[in-house]
Amino acid sequence: MIKALVFDAYGTLFDVHSVGKECNEVFPSKGDAISQSWRKKQLEYFFLRQLMQRYKPFDDITKDALNYACKENGAELSKENEKRLMDAYLKLDLFEEVETVLQQLSQKKLVVFSNGSKNMIDPLVEQSNIQLSIDLVISADEIKQYKPTPAAYNHALEKLELKREEILFMSSNPWDITGAKSFGFHTAWINRKDLVYEELNIQPDTVYSDLSGIMEWIEKT
Amino acid sequence: MIKALVFDAYGTLFDVHSVGKECNEVFPSKGDAISQSWRKKQLEYFFLRQLMQRYKPFDDITKDALNYACKENGAELSKENEKRLMDAYLKLDLFEEVETVLQQLSQKKLVVFSNGSKNMIDPLVEQSNIQLSIDLVISADEIKQYKPTPAAYNHALEKLELKREEILFMSSNPWDITGAKSFGFHTAWINRKDLVYEELNIQPDTVYSDLSGIMEWIEKT
Repeated sequence: MIKALVFDAYGTLFDVHSVGKECNEVFPSKGDAISQSWRKKQLEYFFLRQLMQRYKPFDDITKDALNYACKENGAELSKENEKRLMDAYLKLDLFEEVETVLQQLSQKKLVVFSNGSKNMIDPLVEQSNIQLSIDLVISADEIKQYKPTPAAYNHALEKLELKREEILFMSSNPWDITGAKSFGFHTAWINRKDLVYEELNIQPDTVYSDLSGIMEWIEKT
Repeated sequence: MIKALVFDAYGTLFDVHSVGKECNEVFPSKGDAISQSWRKKQLEYFFLRQLMQRYKPFDDITKDALNYACKENGAELSKENEKRLMDAYLKLDLFEEVETVLQQLSQKKLVVFSNGSKNMIDPLVEQSNIQLSIDLVISADEIKQYKPTPAAYNHALEKLELKREEILFMSSNPWDITGAKSFGFHTAWINRKDLVYEELNIQPDTVYSDLSGIMEWIEKT
């Protein structure tokens, strides 16, 4: 019996590449490349910092990754534009179906569980149209760990005061789904980009192309 | 005073993309894309497995990454071709300058320190022209850890019975140089691809475009 529906934020509820618009205004013709590199480096930097035991919060890492992305694309980033693009990260678009799906699930416990530090994830959720649907926002930053470490998922578990098998975790990020499944959550991979699955010998319980699919799971259980 | 010159293997001494030739023979027109994806996923999988505490040795991960790379590129991998391509990983080309540079350094203690499991890194070194120059091959697999964790670099340190500052570590992989510097080795980043440096707030001691540059360091010290 699932008692909490737990959603990853970046890439799952919110479209990180909606910053591409802002990037294109600041750096015409380079915006999409910068947006792609920004996200790629953001992920890489939190994996590497976790591995090196050099923790830094999500906002710092996001800023570092933006600086890398600009350098890599030969774009000079002023302090003013850095602030403008970091601010854009607090106003990411929701994916199209998210608001409707979460409204339909309003009788369930709905939770956001993110690597985002509270100073980034809280304002993002609060300014969005799902604010009233969300019961709790959990950040792995609260224990200075990043998903996909077992400690990060364990932190969510402790905050929820549930058993692992009472949690359905959803993410579009394959590494996040693999980490959550490895830890013992039920998992639904929201495969928005029609990716092939990772060869990590750990499979999600189910795969949907967007969050609408989870209505099916809810009806089954 | 530097007492050991420690080289990363894959990408630093040996060109991982020399498997591209073999990939192109097996999968005409798709070989380069497969070779690129193969390496990218290999790195990602050992980072993720370390983070998830799901260790697997380098040979298994390399095989998993090859399977992903083929799936991603719509190429069907037979068991026979899997073996052929995995065998190619035991015969990677040395980068052009490596043999000459290592011969010039033959009076120094020369060490290979790799994430590669012994069943992959030992045959690779043994069949190469640098075999006689290398005094010791250390694998992070000996303690079931991957660089860039501090534990991995500490393993090399213990095997060498030296102080951190007596070691000059060289790698073309930015994440490896960052990890080694973070741990306390002297580091020279061999920036073969003219990459911009990572925004991880940890800088290598020096940067060279290939290994020839280290002769300069040796003359200084």
